[in-house]
Amino acid sequence: MEIVALAGGIGAGKFLRGVRRVAAAEGHRLSVIVNTGDDLDHLGVHVSPDLDSVCHWLSGEMDRERGWGVRGETFAMMEALRANPLAPGWFNLGDRDLSTHLYRTMRLRQGATLSAVTAELARERFGIEATILPMTDDPVTTRIVVRGVDGVSEDLHFQEYWVDRKAQGHVVEVRFDGASTARPAAGVEPALTAADAILLCPSNPVVSLGPILAIPGVRSLLRRRRDVTVGVSPIVGGAPLAGMADRLMPAVGLEVSAIGAARSVADVATGWVVDTTDRDLADAIEDELPGMRVRVTDTVMRDDDVATEVARTALSVVSG
Amino acid sequence: MEIVALAGGIGAGKFLRGVRRVAAAEGHRLSVIVNTGDDLDHLGVHVSPDLDSVCHWLSGEMDRERGWGVRGETFAMMEALRANPLAPGWFNLGDRDLSTHLYRTMRLRQGATLSAVTAELARERFGIEATILPMTDDPVTTRIVVRGVDGVSEDLHFQEYWVDRKAQGHVVEVRFDGASTARPAAGVEPALTAADAILLCPSNPVVSLGPILAIPGVRSLLRRRRDVTVGVSPIVGGAPLAGMADRLMPAVGLEVSAIGAARSVADVATGWVVDTTDRDLADAIEDELPGMRVRVTDTVMRDDDVATEVARTALSVVSG
Repeated sequence: MEIVALAGGIGAGKFLRGVRRVAAAEGHRLSVIVNTGDDLDHLGVHVSPDLDSVCHWLSGEMDRERGWGVRGETFAMMEALRANPLAPGWFNLGDRDLSTHLYRTMRLRQGATLSAVTAELARERFGIEATILPMTDDPVTTRIVVRGVDGVSEDLHFQEYWVDRKAQGHVVEVRFDGASTARPAAGVEPALTAADAILLCPSNPVVSLGPILAIPGVRSLLRRRRDVTVGVSPIVGGAPLAGMADRLMPAVGLEVSAIGAARSVADVATGWVVDTTDRDLADAIEDELPGMRVRVTDTVMRDDDVATEVARTALSVVSG
Repeated sequence: MEIVALAGGIGAGKFLRGVRRVAAAEGHRLSVIVNTGDDLDHLGVHVSPDLDSVCHWLSGEMDRERGWGVRGETFAMMEALRANPLAPGWFNLGDRDLSTHLYRTMRLRQGATLSAVTAELARERFGIEATILPMTDDPVTTRIVVRGVDGVSEDLHFQEYWVDRKAQGHVVEVRFDGASTARPAAGVEPALTAADAILLCPSNPVVSLGPILAIPGVRSLLRRRRDVTVGVSPIVGGAPLAGMADRLMPAVGLEVSAIGAARSVADVATGWVVDTTDRDLADAIEDELPGMRVRVTDTVMRDDDVATEVARTALSVVSG
């Protein structure tokens, strides 16, 4: 069976460890299409936070407690950087992570596509068997427009909003600059077309799945594959398990709930996995969203066993 | 008094700590013009080994034992990089050093000149009072052509020759690509013109001082300032204290001795400091090179006290 997952960062990483275990046990192949709207050029290096996060989690090098980066990470570069008051110190670049950023940046400058570099890193640096695909090789940047208490609006890179501003301010707009002219990376459409199961990871519907679905052709292709597509709700008990979806969903008219998140993908998914906390919403979701089958399970992925059960539950919607 | 020094890497660094101490004690100002022929773009970052070395030594952050880099340096990035067999692992980039490379690269990409970035780093990152000037803001690259035992020639970047190949092979040519069209960086000519004393640090005459003197206008200006210019021999007892000058000097027709090194700068220097080991060469140098006054002192700079004495000795030639 060919399994394809659409992924953002940490929530996706936890879930994908379960998917990978099921795939390995049952001889399925796994491809992951990853959001690159969070990518940024910082200190001259190209950082792809979600690609890195997915690679860290699938390789087992992730720092489960901190949620991002690799275990045993050190920050000697940052410490020295902060000795220079002229240097931008707001975005943390770990020493070990830097090897990935530097390799990626070098290869991109040599003319390699992000897809090619991602494949090299996944296989050679991280030893990952799954196919890791950036959503696009073209530059797409998620911008967040916030209005402060003083009424002044600011147009921020997603990472500035999230890391530097700690998601402060009222979000009035979310844009994916470059998305309308971006093309899906080479492997994306073939993978979606050939998939026996497509999984929407429990990722931020606005800034993780949103950019992937905004790449021309992807959403319409997914609609045609709706019968094999299942999502896992990133919202549990009316709040995200991690991140700032609660501040972004209202800005695009989505209720911060398992049902609100389901609405955002109702045109592309036939299955929706919600946490046991949200058991009561199952009927409401199926009533409101025709053709959507809801499954209920523990989706708070404390460990790989829970993640594996979530993966099995999601796959059960489309594979019997 | 205005003191200007021409500098390469480690030997220069040790000497400059002595010069700085004399300058501080006697109220002189110090400017250092630094070789950039060793600069390389590696892993997408712009590395300026000699500029960094001079800054490390003048700031006191140098690792005196290893000779390069900063004390307490770690190599977590390199360790992770080497986990990727596709990544070039031959050039060591320390984690703390990386903060300098990254800041420099970022600023150069923003359009800043190397001079401007160097001034920012020297002042803000390293707290150095002296003026640190790259010899040029234009790209100049020292290339070493070596012939192996198999008779095949290879044209290598200086760092490939030195770090990757460990100075193996017979050197048949040394080139400074880009030098003939490079312009001295903005402050270089004014500093040399205004100098009351010009010091040639005990640096490799071929690949450290050579590139600086190859920048159009510099050598001719120095000839006009010969009466205030003094060099310190980098060769002691017929061998360099560090580096590979013994393999490069023959390739450009220079004898590997205090006299050979003196010959390479006889047109621009009126003073030459040799080590006590080479006391016997003093008369021969003065006889062969008219107008060259030789001073003898201990030039093996184990510590700042020795370096200070070398600096005082060099300055004594031109300031009384």
